[in-house]
Order: sequence, then C-alpha cells, then structure tokens
Amino acid sequence: MSRIFIIYLCSFIFAQSNAQLLSPRNQLDSTVIRQIFDEVLLRGECYQNLHFLCKNIGHRLTGSDGAKKSVEWVENTLLKINPDTVFKQLFEAPYWVRGANDWAILNGTEPIDLQITALGGSIGTIGKLTAQVIVVDDIDALESYKNHDIEGKIVLFNKPMDKRFINTFQAYGACVSQRFNGASEAAKKGAVAVLVRSLTTQTDHFPHTGVMAYSEGIAKIPAAAISTAHADLIAENYSKTKNTSISINLGCEDKGLTPAHNVIGEIRGSENPEKIMVIGAHLDSWDLGEGAHDDGAGVVHCMEVIRLFNILGIKPRHTIRAVLYMNEENGNAGGKHYAQNAKRKNEQHIFALETDRGGFSPRGFTFQCAPEQLEKIKQFAPLLEPYYINLLEAGYGGVDIGPLNYPEYKVNSQLILSGLMPDSQRYFDLHHTDNDVFENINQRELELGAGAIAAIIYLLDQYWEWVNL
Amino acid sequence: MSRIFIIYLCSFIFAQSNAQLLSPRNQLDSTVIRQIFDEVLLRGECYQNLHFLCKNIGHRLTGSDGAKKSVEWVENTLLKINPDTVFKQLFEAPYWVRGANDWAILNGTEPIDLQITALGGSIGTIGKLTAQVIVVDDIDALESYKNHDIEGKIVLFNKPMDKRFINTFQAYGACVSQRFNGASEAAKKGAVAVLVRSLTTQTDHFPHTGVMAYSEGIAKIPAAAISTAHADLIAENYSKTKNTSISINLGCEDKGLTPAHNVIGEIRGSENPEKIMVIGAHLDSWDLGEGAHDDGAGVVHCMEVIRLFNILGIKPRHTIRAVLYMNEENGNAGGKHYAQNAKRKNEQHIFALETDRGGFSPRGFTFQCAPEQLEKIKQFAPLLEPYYINLLEAGYGGVDIGPLNYPEYKVNSQLILSGLMPDSQRYFDLHHTDNDVFENINQRELELGAGAIAAIIYLLDQYWEWVNL
Repeated sequence: MSRIFIIYLCSFIFAQSNAQLLSPRNQLDSTVIRQIFDEVLLRGECYQNLHFLCKNIGHRLTGSDGAKKSVEWVENTLLKINPDTVFKQLFEAPYWVRGANDWAILNGTEPIDLQITALGGSIGTIGKLTAQVIVVDDIDALESYKNHDIEGKIVLFNKPMDKRFINTFQAYGACVSQRFNGASEAAKKGAVAVLVRSLTTQTDHFPHTGVMAYSEGIAKIPAAAISTAHADLIAENYSKTKNTSISINLGCEDKGLTPAHNVIGEIRGSENPEKIMVIGAHLDSWDLGEGAHDDGAGVVHCMEVIRLFNILGIKPRHTIRAVLYMNEENGNAGGKHYAQNAKRKNEQHIFALETDRGGFSPRGFTFQCAPEQLEKIKQFAPLLEPYYINLLEAGYGGVDIGPLNYPEYKVNSQLILSGLMPDSQRYFDLHHTDNDVFENINQRELELGAGAIAAIIYLLDQYWEWVNL
Repeated sequence: MSRIFIIYLCSFIFAQSNAQLLSPRNQLDSTVIRQIFDEVLLRGECYQNLHFLCKNIGHRLTGSDGAKKSVEWVENTLLKINPDTVFKQLFEAPYWVRGANDWAILNGTEPIDLQITALGGSIGTIGKLTAQVIVVDDIDALESYKNHDIEGKIVLFNKPMDKRFINTFQAYGACVSQRFNGASEAAKKGAVAVLVRSLTTQTDHFPHTGVMAYSEGIAKIPAAAISTAHADLIAENYSKTKNTSISINLGCEDKGLTPAHNVIGEIRGSENPEKIMVIGAHLDSWDLGEGAHDDGAGVVHCMEVIRLFNILGIKPRHTIRAVLYMNEENGNAGGKHYAQNAKRKNEQHIFALETDRGGFSPRGFTFQCAPEQLEKIKQFAPLLEPYYINLLEAGYGGVDIGPLNYPEYKVNSQLILSGLMPDSQRYFDLHHTDNDVFENINQRELELGAGAIAAIIYLLDQYWEWVNL
C-alpha cells in the first residue's frame, strides 16, 4: 500500500464524526494499527536512534556530561521528527557522583576483591573502612537483632529475588526496600556501613546499582551493592566463622543540586487540544553501562510514536506529548517538576503511559484506573492480539508519570496512568549494570514495543469518551 | 511447601476418581501447575543440561561424532532422571558432510570474500566454479526468465524474509522454498549453481544454512546460503553491472546412509498405559554453532518434563514419552522411523507435542486438531494465564512428530499434534548459524518453556476424555 493511499485512508478515518466514536470500529482501526506496525518494522528509526544514544552519548546520570548531551540530542532528534512543538523544562535535580576507584576486600589470609559498586545517594567512606560483617536475611529480619549485635558492623542485606515470580518486577518489588532503606535502618542500630545483595535472579558477577535514601535524623552510613556471587561468598564464609571482616572504600559524593531539563515533543490535538496524553520515559540513566534498556529503549519508543503519528498522517484528537524526563533514577525531580508545572497551568492530563521496563517483546499494558475504565480498555483486545499484545490489566504506571496522580498535582479526575509491559525475564540480568548496553537490545523487540504504544495511544485517543462513558 | 507435602497433595489429587475428571478442577490443578513452575524455576536442571550438551558435545549433525555422543549422553541423563523405561531405536539416516574449506569470491578488480556456507544436502563443486551471477527475486520469479537467461549462470535467489509478520516463523515459511527447491528449479533452466539469501530478518554477516533437496531426474548443482549483507552487496553490484562474476568452492559430500538412534524415556500410564502422549524434540543439529536453540533447548525441555513429573510425584494416567529424535535437520529419518514403528506395533498415540522453536519465553501452543477439541483446550486458559501463556490456537505441530499423522502411519483418529510457541522475535537471528550457542540462551526463558510443556501435558493427560467428549 502506498504512503499516499495510507494518508488518504487516514484522512477518511479521522473525518468520521464524534458520534461514531462511541465504540471501536474494528475494520478501520485494525487497518491503522496494521499500518503502524508495518511502518515501525519496515522503516522504524528507534533502533538506530538507540544506537546513537548508547554509543555516541553513553550513560547519563543527572548532572553528567552524558545527561547534558542527551538533552541536546533528544531535542534535535525531536525537531527532525517535527511534531508541532518541541520545548524543554528547566528545574533543579539531585547531583551525585560515584568515586573513581571504589573497592571492597573480604579480609583473610587470602584476601578476595569483592564486586561492589556504591548505591546512588550514598556517602563515601572517607578512606578505608574496615569492620566485621553481619549477614541479615532482609530488612525485616533486622528487628530481631539487638543494637549490640549490629553496632560497629557492616550489615550485608542478603535477601535474594524470589525466582518463582513469573513477572520479575514483582520479585524486585519484594526486595527493593533493603536497597532503598537498608542503610538508615541498619544505622539506627549502630551499623557503620551496608552492603546490599544485587537485585537480580541470576548468580552473577556484576554489582547492580540503584538509588537509596537516608531517613531524616539518622546517621548517614555508606551503602554499596555487591554481586550476588559475592554476597553468597560472604554468607558462606560467615556461616563458617562469624569473624568475617571487610574493608570498603567508596569515593562517592553528593554534589547538591544541578540544573536539569525535561524535553517534550507535542502534537497538538485536532479536537480537544486542551486535553493531554503523555508518553513518557526517562533520559537519565545510571552511570554504569549505557542505559540501553533502562531507559534508552523507552526514550526511543516515545520519539518513535511521534514519528509514526506524523509519517502516517494520524491526527490525534487530543494533544499527544512525548515527555523525556530527567532524574528518574535518583530523585524523580523531572517527574515532579512536570506534574507541578501542569498543576500550575491547570493542564488537563487525561492519560499518561510510561515505558521503563526495557525494550523486550511487548506483552501488554498495566493500567491505574477505575474498574469501569479497565473493562472498556479490555474491549480493545481483539485489535491488539494479532500483535501478541495479550495483557490489559490493572497495575502500576511508572515513576516519572506518577506525580501527575499525586493529590497535590492532580487536575483531572479521569486521569489514567499506564505502563508498557514487555517480557520481563531478561530485564534484571542487565538492570543497573555494566551489561545494560546496546548489544543486548533486539531490533524487532524494540520496534514492536514502539508499535504497541502507538496502537494503544491511537485507540485511547479515538475512544476516550467511550472509555469514560 | 515441603517436598513431602507436595507429594502428599499430589497423591490426593491423583486419587480422585475418573468420574471427576470431566472438567478442569481449577483449585487442584492450579496447585499442581504452580508446583511445576516453582520446581523448574528454583531447582530446574534444563539449563545446566543444555550447557553440557552445547559445551561438552557441541553441534551434532546426523552421522557426526557429536551426534553419537549426544545419543549416549541423553540416554545416560534420562537414566539418571529415572523414568520407567529408557530405550533407543536404531535406523538408517542420511549422512552429509560439509567441506573443510568452503569459500566464494565476488570477482572484480577488488575481489571480495563472500560469507557463504553450503546448504545441507548440496553436492560439492569439484574444484573452483566460476560463473556470471543472475539475481532473481524469488523462486516464483524464475518462471519469467528464459533458459538462455539462466544457462551457465549462478542464480542468487534473493527474496528477503518479510519483517511485517509478527510471528517470524510465518515469514520463514513464505521464503523457505527458495532454499529447499531453488537448486533444482534453477537447474531446470540450465543454472550451474545457486546462492540463496540467508533466512533472517536481519542484515547480518552470518550465512544461515539449512536443508535443500534435489528433484528426481534434474541435474544436481551446488547450493549455498549467503549472508543477507552479501546478498545485498551482490544485488547492488548486479543492479549496476550485469557483468557480475562469482567463484565458489564447496567441498561438501553426500556419504549415503549411517546408523542413527532416537532416544526415548517413558513414564508408564497408571490408568491407560496403552495410550501414549509424546513430548518430542530433535537431538541432531546443524554443524554450525552448538544447536543451542535448535534444538538443544527442546531436548532439555523434554527431559525436564520427565524430571518434573517424577520429582513432583505426578503419576500420569496415560503413558508419557520424551522422544529425542535424530535427523530432523536433513531427512527426518528419526521422525519417520518412530511413526512407522508405532504403526507396526499398533501403538495408540493420542497426543504429540514438539518443542523446536527455541528456548525463548513461552507464549502458548499451536494445535493440529478438530475445532471441538481446540474449543475444549482453550478452556484451560485460566490455568495457564498466570504464567503468561496466552495463546492456545490452531497451528502446526512440528517436523519430528509430523509422520504420526501421515495416513500410512496414523493409528488413532483422535490424535492431536501440538507445538510449543515461544516468543519468535530472536529465533531467526541465530537459526542455523555459528551464533546459535549457549550464551544466547536465557535460563528463566528456557525453564519457563519446560514448565509450560509440563503444565499442558499434565492438563491433557488428566482431561483427555473431556477434551474428546
């Protein structure tokens, strides 16, 4: 089918009156969705864009050179894609840097170099810190210890991700508090540092970093992730002799705040421009690897959806914004700023979809919405199943878009948040490690994710009133 | 839950009378299926088995040392897993060997080494063969050429796999005839050799081998696969100058027939031992890479299902056989022998499932069966959806199990054939190349495939009469 014919067909579709938009028109919709997938699979640009982001810019933690370059590149790339408007939002965000020479050693007659990396937000050690280790099953188990068990020690939180969860994000959710809150909880009992078992189902030799935070009024102690293989090694050693000592050196540093930007590309709605639908992902990444799956994939997904709408001549009824947020990984300043700004301007956000679970084969979407809305959305299933998009279910949207739903920022009571749900089996093999690189992206899987988002945005834009009837 | 308790629970389940087996008992069945997935994800042995097969044995084309070793290893591994019976079947199968030093050159002022590999079954070139190339879009396009266009030339069949198919096996199916039949079709018009564009959606630098065959009474000419990148290169060169010459050297050789074995592990049915359900995969692989996805993954899936039934104390009502076939890749002698033997013994095969589409995340199953049978099978969906097994649909079973359905071998009219349907996006990146190695297997994806097969076999075994009501 020629491009001209597609555009002709689309203009016919979009000339339908509102009265006809009350329930899905399967024949026309399936034609549009087929065109979306044909375009992305034959001429998609997301894979090449991700290659550039990973290989020419690389990782991009807030405040870093990579972060600044990525803002400039995304702005320029969006300008080439040519939505109606491209703009940036300026705000201040946390700025943290890792030390250049972090290490840890399991002391003994034959000392062993441990695979560790500082957790984002941690203080440094100010020189070498040496202490006895105590291995604690998880953050809840800490309660059963007395202060004198913990005082002066390095706590290893060693809860593994439960392999039995089919969706690995559920296993992650059940473990992440030891990483986020572990340091302050251990400090309350007098610990001098914490090591946290890396959050992956694999036994591997990569420390997986991630954000942590200190509780107000509690002494700050250093916190690092340790590879699962080395967490097992320490635990085995500790089970034989409680006299297990570790030395750690972390040179990380909190640099306060830094100017940061969200980048936004907007297609203005043809019927209800004041109602906004967001497609969001985060531009920043951890400072290991290239942030390919987390969340380079999401960034190029969002830009590709705008490109698909433009090239196929799909004129959305509502305003569609691709929002590329900064600072999801260590503060979510971008997400909060965006929502705060939207509240200030009384912008009517009706829908926001986040893609931040990797560039793997799309399986479906999760929705934070009313049960009646979800029942309507599930009626889109026959239009999506030809693309093996089988899951339309209740669940979390995402970190960046979350603040739009905070009581202090929420404007529209019908707001639906949603998350792309790719196959989750490989995500935590790579997450927050040196391994999250472009080579671990599959072109078709990435493209199908962009197609899936474009399809659901197209449907929700067309049938918004019907979904909310 | 302790193993003892699981076994207790299972014995309770299996003590239910036949009268209760008329429709799925969701609570009990979901408990068993959950135990299957817990066991495979926590203590599965398929990944370690596949590591051994790939790294200690390697590729295993029929007749090769690897093939012989793999038969011995599978027999020993099955004996350790301890089904009721382990046995082999001896038959004769085609034996073909690749040359040690195959090459092709695009001639010119700056000759270019081409990435080629002989197609399985091809004759050699007997020294260097040099000829002009003619690029033909696909096998059907050959009809429009006159004999004098083709005579004395090397035909490059250059039909690419259509990226628009969401299921890549459909794209493969639409292209594979140029590889299988291309040589004889070209020879009918006087071609001296054929090159076939590799069957992958990627533009890459790996030739993808595969089987071809010669038609009776037509001159045999050499046939090789060429990487997609180099097929494009030749096509570009040819579009500029029809005077494009290639030299090829292929040392491959048909060695006639060789003794070969299928290996079978059987759990005898507790109620209807005379009715047999097969789980099949093929032991042989192409002589490139390690046959990790094709079909090492299937081999270890089948053995794991037997292990899961044994360790969980699941006593099937019908006889379950894991059949590891030899010679799927270049002749299917193992599949034919198995079916012929079953016919001779009047064995009542009621179900056969093949796993030969890779060790990726399972999406569902295809079934060759009557529509009424499929409607019943679809009622299992609520028990499988928690594992993201969403597709239960009509479709092909597989090559190895296919002969059970040939009119000359079929015994039981209710026979259902089925195929595991993993996510297909990455399969043809690796298929029949040096890249099909263990490193490209993900442990959880592989394990989930074994769990999916065990679950569907468990359900069909329990509810066979109901499915056929």
